[in-house]
Parts: sequence; C-alpha cells; structure tokens
Amino acid sequence: MAEREPGRELRVGVVGTGIMGADHVRTIATSVAGARVSAVTDLDAERARAAIAGIDGARVLSDPFGLVADDEVDAVLVASADATHEELVLACVQAGKPVLCEKPLTPAPEGSLRIVEAEEKAGRRLVSVGFMRRYDPGYVDVKESLREGVVGAPLLLHCVHRNASSRPNTPSSGLITGSAVHEFDVIRWLLDEEITQVTVFRPRPSSLVVGDTTDPLLVLLGTASGLLADVEVFVNAQYGYDVRCELVGELGSLYLDEPVQVRRRAERTRTSTVSLDWRDRFAEAYRRELQDWVTGAAAGEQRGADAWDGYVATVAAAAGVAALDKPGIPVPVELPPRPELYATR
Amino acid sequence: MAEREPGRELRVGVVGTGIMGADHVRTIATSVAGARVSAVTDLDAERARAAIAGIDGARVLSDPFGLVADDEVDAVLVASADATHEELVLACVQAGKPVLCEKPLTPAPEGSLRIVEAEEKAGRRLVSVGFMRRYDPGYVDVKESLREGVVGAPLLLHCVHRNASSRPNTPSSGLITGSAVHEFDVIRWLLDEEITQVTVFRPRPSSLVVGDTTDPLLVLLGTASGLLADVEVFVNAQYGYDVRCELVGELGSLYLDEPVQVRRRAERTRTSTVSLDWRDRFAEAYRRELQDWVTGAAAGEQRGADAWDGYVATVAAAAGVAALDKPGIPVPVELPPRPELYATR
Amino acid sequence: MAEREPGRELRVGVVGTGIMGADHVRTIATSVAGARVSAVTDLDAERARAAIAGIDGARVLSDPFGLVADDEVDAVLVASADATHEELVLACVQAGKPVLCEKPLTPAPEGSLRIVEAEEKAGRRLVSVGFMRRYDPGYVDVKESLREGVVGAPLLLHCVHRNASSRPNTPSSGLITGSAVHEFDVIRWLLDEEITQVTVFRPRPSSLVVGDTTDPLLVLLGTASGLLADVEVFVNAQYGYDVRCELVGELGSLYLDEPVQVRRRAERTRTSTVSLDWRDRFAEAYRRELQDWVTGAAAGEQRGADAWDGYVATVAAAAGVAALDKPGIPVPVELPPRPELYATR
Amino acid sequence: MAEREPGRELRVGVVGTGIMGADHVRTIATSVAGARVSAVTDLDAERARAAIAGIDGARVLSDPFGLVADDEVDAVLVASADATHEELVLACVQAGKPVLCEKPLTPAPEGSLRIVEAEEKAGRRLVSVGFMRRYDPGYVDVKESLREGVVGAPLLLHCVHRNASSRPNTPSSGLITGSAVHEFDVIRWLLDEEITQVTVFRPRPSSLVVGDTTDPLLVLLGTASGLLADVEVFVNAQYGYDVRCELVGELGSLYLDEPVQVRRRAERTRTSTVSLDWRDRFAEAYRRELQDWVTGAAAGEQRGADAWDGYVATVAAAAGVAALDKPGIPVPVELPPRPELYATR
Ligand SMILES: [Mg+2]
Ligand SMILES: [Mg+2]
Ligand SMILES: [Mg+2]
Ligand SMILES: [Mg+2]
Repeated sequence: MAEREPGRELRVGVVGTGIMGADHVRTIATSVAGARVSAVTDLDAERARAAIAGIDGARVLSDPFGLVADDEVDAVLVASADATHEELVLACVQAGKPVLCEKPLTPAPEGSLRIVEAEEKAGRRLVSVGFMRRYDPGYVDVKESLREGVVGAPLLLHCVHRNASSRPNTPSSGLITGSAVHEFDVIRWLLDEEITQVTVFRPRPSSLVVGDTTDPLLVLLGTASGLLADVEVFVNAQYGYDVRCELVGELGSLYLDEPVQVRRRAERTRTSTVSLDWRDRFAEAYRRELQDWVTGAAAGEQRGADAWDGYVATVAAAAGVAALDKPGIPVPVELPPRPELYATR
Repeated sequence: MAEREPGRELRVGVVGTGIMGADHVRTIATSVAGARVSAVTDLDAERARAAIAGIDGARVLSDPFGLVADDEVDAVLVASADATHEELVLACVQAGKPVLCEKPLTPAPEGSLRIVEAEEKAGRRLVSVGFMRRYDPGYVDVKESLREGVVGAPLLLHCVHRNASSRPNTPSSGLITGSAVHEFDVIRWLLDEEITQVTVFRPRPSSLVVGDTTDPLLVLLGTASGLLADVEVFVNAQYGYDVRCELVGELGSLYLDEPVQVRRRAERTRTSTVSLDWRDRFAEAYRRELQDWVTGAAAGEQRGADAWDGYVATVAAAAGVAALDKPGIPVPVELPPRPELYATR
Repeated sequence: MAEREPGRELRVGVVGTGIMGADHVRTIATSVAGARVSAVTDLDAERARAAIAGIDGARVLSDPFGLVADDEVDAVLVASADATHEELVLACVQAGKPVLCEKPLTPAPEGSLRIVEAEEKAGRRLVSVGFMRRYDPGYVDVKESLREGVVGAPLLLHCVHRNASSRPNTPSSGLITGSAVHEFDVIRWLLDEEITQVTVFRPRPSSLVVGDTTDPLLVLLGTASGLLADVEVFVNAQYGYDVRCELVGELGSLYLDEPVQVRRRAERTRTSTVSLDWRDRFAEAYRRELQDWVTGAAAGEQRGADAWDGYVATVAAAAGVAALDKPGIPVPVELPPRPELYATR
Repeated sequence: MAEREPGRELRVGVVGTGIMGADHVRTIATSVAGARVSAVTDLDAERARAAIAGIDGARVLSDPFGLVADDEVDAVLVASADATHEELVLACVQAGKPVLCEKPLTPAPEGSLRIVEAEEKAGRRLVSVGFMRRYDPGYVDVKESLREGVVGAPLLLHCVHRNASSRPNTPSSGLITGSAVHEFDVIRWLLDEEITQVTVFRPRPSSLVVGDTTDPLLVLLGTASGLLADVEVFVNAQYGYDVRCELVGELGSLYLDEPVQVRRRAERTRTSTVSLDWRDRFAEAYRRELQDWVTGAAAGEQRGADAWDGYVATVAAAAGVAALDKPGIPVPVELPPRPELYATR
C-alpha cells in the first residue's frame, strides 16, 4: 500500500510527450494514486504544452537534463526517442532518482550494460523498464497458473504478435527491436529462465505492406531448459492489434486470448471487437505498471522489469537482428553472469 | 482530467469500514488519482484502525458526524449500515460536501426523497450513489452499442444475478433490496427510461439454502416504453458470482458475459474461472467509480448515479418487496416528476 | 444397430414435399442408413417430382392415402399441411405402418388425442413426432449433464427462440404453435416432468414486423415440481436463427449456445456465423432423428417423441394460445393420465 | 445425390477390424446411406465376428484377397496394418473395385507410387485415402472462407496436434507418419499448393512419456508459395485430443477450434469438454467421408483424397522422418510431376 506523506504526492517528470509519453501523462493525472506530473519536456514544446493541458502545477521545461535535476521532480519517466534513453537514465541514476524508461532500455546492449554498471556502482536499483505485459491480468494469470502446476512443466510456447500497421519502411530489424522484444521479455518472465538462442524465418511477405518492410516474420526461441517458443511477428496485419499466446506443459495448456466483454449478434454474425492498438489492449497493464512504479518509488523500491531485464532484452533483440540476415540459422544469446544487485526480487 | 492544486489531494473521510468500506479505503489509497483517505470511523474502532494501517495521515475518528464536519475531510464516502445513510448524507448536504453513498441510498423511499428535497433546497447535487455497474467496461459497451444502433430499438432484456451464498436467514426482501436493486438501476441507466412495474415469481426454491430464505426469485420488470426485463436473482447459487445480461433489440442482441482471460486445458476439460464475489467481478468498475467521483468532487461536479437515481431505485425496490407477497401480480412503480435539478447530466 | 435384410432397405413414403418434406427426402437419400424414399406425394406434383430428381426407384403418387396403403411403402413421413396430419397419421396406424409426423402432431389437442386412442386400440406405438431437438448433440449433452448431477436439482430455465423472419401476417398464435411448441416439448423432455401452466407476456413489439404480428412474446411456464421456465419467442429477430437455453440448478448452470467452429478476425472484429434457419442449426439433429426413426422402424420399435408427447405439446400449445388473450394470467395445462402404452421408453 | 438402384446398396468389404475398421463397420451400418457391410476379414477372426454382430448379411471371410475378389463385395475399405495396404489396394485396382484405404496409403513413398502407376495403367482413379479432415465442417469452413477472400492471401499457418497418449515406445518417426501426416495432407488441401520442405525441431521432451519416445516435436513446413506452417505434434499431451489451427492471411486470420456445445458452470469454473480421441473429435468427418466415398463409388466417381494425395503425403512424411535426425536442417520434399489422371477434381 502507498506509504506517502499526507498531501504529498510523488512528483513525476516526463521526458518525451509523443504517443506513449502523452498517454502516460494522462494516466498518471487521472488514474494513478499518489503521483502527479510536475514537469514535462519534449523537442516539440507545443506538443509538451498540449500534454499537460488542464493539469495544475505541471510545467513545460526546455531541457530534459534540467528536468531530471529539477527540485520538483521526484521521479522520471523516459518516453523520448530510443537513442536518448541511455544518457537520460544514467542522469537519473546519478541523481538518485527512480526512473521508468520505455522499452527498449537502449538501442544496443552496450548502452544497457553501462546502465547496469552505473546502478551497480550506485549500489541500488533505480531503473524500471516499461515491459507492461508483466502487469496484464491475463499474463499474470498464465504465470500464476503455471506456478500452481496446472499444466505441469512447460515445454512449448506459441506466441502471436500482430499490429494493424507499421510506419512505412520500418526495417525488419524494427519488428525485432520494437515488437518481438515484448515477447522476449514476457517469455523470460513467464518461465523464469533465459532465452539461449534465436532463429528467424521469413514466410511469404504480405503484399499490403507499404515500403520495403519484410513482414511477417517467424521467430523461434530456445531457452536454457530446452523449451521452444515460436513467435509470429506481423506488424501489418491490417485487421487490428492482436497478442495471444499458448503455453503448453506436460499436463495441459494455458491459452491467453484478448478478453471478450460483449458479444454482438446482428446480420447473421456474432461479433466482438478486436483492439485497435496496444494502448487499448494493454490499458489496464499500463495503469498497473505506472501505479506500481509510483508506489514503489514512494517506498524506495524498484518494481517491474529492472535494468538487467532491460539489458537482457536488448541482448536477445540484438541476436534476433543478427538472425535476420541468416534465416533458419540459430544465433546464440550470450549473457554475462547476473550481478548480485539483481538477484533478489 | 483532474483539476486539482499541485500537491493537493481530495481528502476523503470514510464512514463504515466493513467489507465494502475497507475495500474502498484500499482502492483510494492504492489506485485512485488525486485523493487520499484522511479519516475513517466505524462502530468497531479496531476494524477502523485496521482499515488505515499503512496509510499516512489517516486518522480514526469516533463520531461519523464529526467526520462529516471535520476540516480535513473534503468529501465523504458512506459505507455504514443502510439505516444510517439518510442522516449521514443529509449532514453532508448541509455541510456542502460531496458524498458517495453505498447503495441503497436509504432503506425506504421516503428517506431518499428527503435527501432529494435537501439537495433541491441546497440548489446543487452533492450526492452520488454507489451503483458501480455504470462504470463496468462491459455494461458501458452495451450502453454505447445500443446508442450506436447496433441492435436497433430495445425490446427485451434478460438478466441473471447470482451470488455464491447469502447470509443465513436473509429475508426474501433482501434479495430485492440488496441484489435486484443493482439490476433496477442498471436497467434504467442502460435504457434511459423508467421502470413502471414489478412482478415477482417464485420458482422452486433451492434446498441448499441455509435458513428460510426463498431463493431464487424471478422478477419481471416493465418499462415506460413497454420493454420487458426478466431478472433471475439467486443469491445461493453455490458455484460463484455471476452477473450477465442480454439486451434484445429489433435488429440483434448484445450479450454481456463475465470476461474470460485465460482458458486452461487439463484433464479432458477446457476451463476458465468464475468470480468469487462482486469485488473481483467488478473491481475495475469500483475503481473507475471512485476515480470519477473524486475527479468530479475536485471539479465541483456530481458524477455517477445521483440522489434521484438512488431514490428511484428505492421506489422500485419497495415495489419489488410489495410484489413478493403477491407472486404473479404486477405492482406499479410510481414516481413524482423528476425535479429540475436532476434534468441535466 | 440396424437389423435389416441384406439388400433390403426400409422404403419410405413422404407426404408433402415443401421445405421440410423435400429436406427430409434429401436427407434420407443421402445420409441415412437402411432406408430409401420409394414414393412421394404433394398437392403440387411438380414440386413432388423435383424433390425426387436423381433418386432411383422413387415414384410420385397422386393420393396421400394411396401412398400410405402402397405396397412399396414400409413407413410414412408426414410433412404436409398441419390440417392433414390427423387423417394421415390415423391411416398409418390403421395400416400398421410406422409414421414420423412433423410437428405439430395436429393443430388442436382433440385430434392428437384421437391418434393416441387409435394407438391404444391398436395396442402398439407406431407414431413418432418430429421434435428433432431431442436429437441435437447440445440438448442431449444438457440432458445427460443434468442426469449426472453436474448442476444438482433444476430450478429455472431460460430459453430463447429466434427466427430471422416469419411469413407476413403470422398470427400471434402461430408463435406459440409453430415456435414455442418446440420449447414446450424439449423442456418436458429435458426435465422429465410436465408443464402445468403457461403465462404469456407481450413486450413492446418490433416495428420491423411486416403485417400485424405481435412479436416478440415472453412465455412463462411452470412445471409440476415448481420449476419456472421463461421463453422468449421472437420470430422476426432479423439477424438470424438463434436458439439457446440455460438450465439453472442448485449447484450450477448448463448453457447451451450455438456451437462455433471457426472464428474469423478481420476489420477490427472477431466473428463467427449465426445460423440462417432451423435447417442449418439443426441439420445434424434432423439426420439423427431420421436415422433413429428408420432404425427403429426396421426393428419394430417406436423411437423419439411419441403420440402422447405430440398430444401433450398440443395441449400446452392450446393453453399458450388461450394465454395470449389474457397477458399475465396463468392458464393451466390439464392432462388426462398417461396411458399405459406410453409408460415405457 | 445417391444414384443407386432401388433396393440395391453398395456392398462394402472391410479388411481389418481393429479400432478404426470396427468403427467404420459400425458407421456404415448405422449412419451411411446406400451401403451395407457384406464381408469383413481380420487376422483375429473373433474380432472380425464381433465387428459384424447384429449386421444381417455380413460374413467373416478368412482371406483378404478373397474378400477383394468376392462377388458380394462392390467396394473395399482397407483398415488393416499399414504394411498390408499396398498389396490390398493394388488388388482392388486390378479388380476394378473402388477402395478407401486408411492413411497412410503405404509406409514408404515407393509403394504409393506403385499404386499411382497401377491406376495410371488402369486409366482410372479407384483409390481414396482416409484423410477425413477434408470432411470436417470446421476445416471445410476454413477452406471456404479462405477461398472467399475473408483473410486475403495466406501467409502463415499455426497448427497443433495433440493426443492424450501414444502406445509405449512409439518411435519419433511414428509422430510424423501417424500424426503429422494428417497435417501435411490438410495443409496441402487447404492451401491448394505443395509442401516443399520440412524441418523438425526437438523441444524439451515431456517426462511423462512412457518408454523412449521423444515427444513433443515442432515441425516447420514451407510451401511452394513461401508460406510457412509450424506444427506442434504432441502425442502424450495427457489432457485429451486437441487439434486446432490458425490460418493467417494478409487481411485477417481464421481460427479453427474444437467446437463447444455446452458450457457448464459449477464450483467456481466455467467448463467445456475436450475430446477423448480422434474418433469423437472427427466422428462427423468420418461419417461424411464414408458417405461421400459410398455415394461416389455408386456413381463411378472417386472422391476425397486420391492415390496421388496419398503418395504425396508419404513423400512429405519421409522427408519429415529424414528431418528427425538433423534437427533444424530443412529437408526438401521432392515430387515428380503430377500425372494427368490426377489433374481434374
Ligand atoms: Mg512498453
Ligand atoms: Mg455498490
Ligand atoms: Mg420439426
Ligand atoms: Mg484417418
């Protein structure tokens, strides 16, 4: 439960008020206990101002590092361009401020490793990474059911990750680093073991993709225990956003589907709605993620995916990107030993 | 969006820390933006203390009217025994403080009417009633789909309201005032028209009910436009909490079921979980209800079901209770004209 | 298992080759073991000829009573106009030939009672009535699950019977005798007890009905044990054919829905198909019904709903029709004692 | 529609009355129009006698080739051990009698090719292969939906094939030739194109398998157009028989699940039944397959999977078996040109 001073909310500074950042600002302002947005910054000052319209006490700052350092900022949410993450997160660690960084933690593993090292040096975990699926009630249910032994030891995982459309000319590597990376993280988290290799297969591409993206991909992951996970990544699936998985164990299977609320019957069909994008599909996951981050920050605790998790995801994604160029050939995921700092959770 | 002073949360006083009250305290403390619990009171001071364990700045007060009057209480949540609602809500109205009162607003219609009259005299709406289903994403979807014309003009409604078990010796009237009343409110809200008559039928009773409750009941409602709604109320259904409805229109039907997240396959069956009680089934509805109430209170606006809605529900429930004694005979629901104060929403 | 001479099929004569009759001819010719259609007759000889196109050895006869008497007809299927059923079925009984009569057995109870009396006089059961739902795998599953005690003693039944559209100017009585009658029969069969009263309620009528049919109706049935069944009958539901029911017992509920085979995802929706009419929804039930009738006839046994069941359905339907004129007033269903001939099944 | 002489049924001889053969005997006797079982044979004469108990006019013969030649056998169903298929089918072709052979047509491709060549020489198609899924209403729906363009051009296929348990010590090759072979056939049939390569992956094996079977397998298929299909084969899945697939196209997806008839609610769960084995899951498919075979045989037409399809399945299975020994390495599926005889369907 929140342990905060009466009348004292965690003051959050948000760097980057694009789609995700603006969404987070709104969620914190309207649906998260114990926090308020005190400052935002964005390359586009107009956009920054729009993001805080109607939020009392929130200011637009011009410099993200100034925001990190600001006295009225207790914790920082980084939702700016991927290339800026490393410097900003390091600044937060140095300032001793909790930070929630949107995924990926950094574009390349080296940057994430520097963040891990900075935390080790600081001697405490301040960094959380925005792998929101860990807060989705469905994924949580799968993990708990697995833990309770409902399906016995896990053997296989079938995953589907579809977006309605991607930006024109998204490179294939973007399918790995932007989309598959969510699968990499959630698979590790569900199974509590590491991914050890990644293979990419290229099915017949969709003719409806604008530009020269090769889409979809089929990604095959192996884990330390020998489990195999096949992951379809299809970011121009046209019909909507659709994330599902089936975990197969020795005794049964757990199937996670998008929850259906209302079934409509009309014109010879029974119909339910498919999500438009990740924001409606995972709205509740984002809210819980932000709430847990805020509650933890107020209590001096790091919650959710940590810097190590963020680092591992970038290592796996780098293997996936390397695998793109040699379809059918497994690429190993090689990790240094996990530092002591990340052993307890 | 919340419009509140920076660093200034709505300070909520909670009267009654039984199951619902304690739940609300926890929800406000952990999941609602812009509010904190500043005071609680309960006949059982121990229970009140337990409810605020770990919540900084919250005090246990001994007198509920003192809580209403307290300088550190901006808004009041009434979750005490039904018989106490009227006096407490009236005190809030007199103090000019927003109040969210758990349903029923009062045990009998006369009390609710006095609250309506007090608000009219005060010239503004301060009272909200805890009909949380209006915030359930599923019911909201049904209402919006109806509004969008997906099924044409509504003609029939089939409703099911089941609890796993009731307290021993719950009188049949309790099935109406405690359970069916949720249906009465949500039906009015979905359809935007009034219930005009209530008929009760008594099916073969369950032999598994402890004590002399007659359970289940079948309740038939007629509305101003001639729509009929059949409502099963079964509060000792044993297997779990289960609320569903189907709205039938000229062009189709909308079926609201409990959402399924994960389907388990094991031992020759495909299985999903049924809710234990209203708190897990409607957890998200309660959270949204509280959030909207808080956001409205901070903005000087009444949100959700108002005192008039609360009054109408008690009138319909009283008709239902009268109908219990003459199974198969319709009892009219008679309402005075709706006061001007409640015309705009 | 079929016990028939090698090379010797049951020769079926079909009276009436309208929609249902022609369907049955096709089903027998293409999907039923041990039978062939040897003769058909219809007021419209052209239609009769069309029905047997491509069926070797089938003749068109001009006189239905000639068909019943024909040496090449071992068993008779009556699918002609309701008003003709009594005479034809009686002729079959007198000829000692098994007969499957489409529902209703006769328009009024008196005619059905005369058939029952003729069978009693003949000393054996030759008449089956086309209540095909008794052969639907879903209804069979509900009945078996009930029998196995999955939901304990039954208390309530919620039924929905929707057709896309009815013939223009179908009288309201047609909703009872043509549609609700299926519910009356299947409810008796599911529960193994008699319906004792029928009440009709008239909801707001659909404005889309052509002509002056009042549609939908809500029918409330009481049974000998006190169970209540509410039945929506809506024969101009526009969107398709939809038959569902939920049986509620002391321990749980059994929900029978139209089975879904394939879920399509496209254009932001997840979709499955709703049946067009009873023929696709109950195709398998019709096939099993015909197969069981043929197998029974070859073995000298009556199968499926018998003349008594047909009679009871007409008595219940007559009560329902009487109830139409006094909405909200229960009309008793009064039955003479069941004759010995129908005691064993 | 059946075109057969009045009173003249197709006389079917059945070779092999093990589980599948006995099932087919029963289905023909009780649920197929226009046919009867006239003769059976089995190494175990007792079992053969049991299979025809109660079927008039059926004889037990001692020699399968005598059965093929028998004057009272118009068509032959081969359900004996795989190793016997070739000789028996060739005998049927030479005798000019239609034959339905259970899959696999032969254990190795060479045998199937000899059957193809025999048919070419005979100048007509007499052989059908028991790939019953082509008759399953669900698979038919997927194929028709694909044809209608509901999901656009197909890109990916995800398949799951699970059995509750296999015989002890089933070799891994048995998972390919006995189970995956159904997937190979149905994929070709759904897509109307050839499989060009097979890769096998070995996930962590289930510890619950008795004997030294490596189970499950993950099989990756490529087709001529570049589509990829991943197929889980898990024959000791413990919980039941479960066959599903999802076809992903440029515009959407088609998901085939086991149809649910009745949902039970009891003890905090909502439950439906999973099939025990292929016989209940595909009962309707088997019936339709047999009916279509019989109807075709009576009309002088070959229906369903033909000898070429049977041959192609064995070639793909042989590639799959070869792939077992080199996990992760694709093995090509190489086919000679399709003979003219198999061009029209
Ligand atoms: Mg994210
Ligand atoms: Mg409430
Ligand atoms: Mg019928
Ligand atoms: Mg087969």
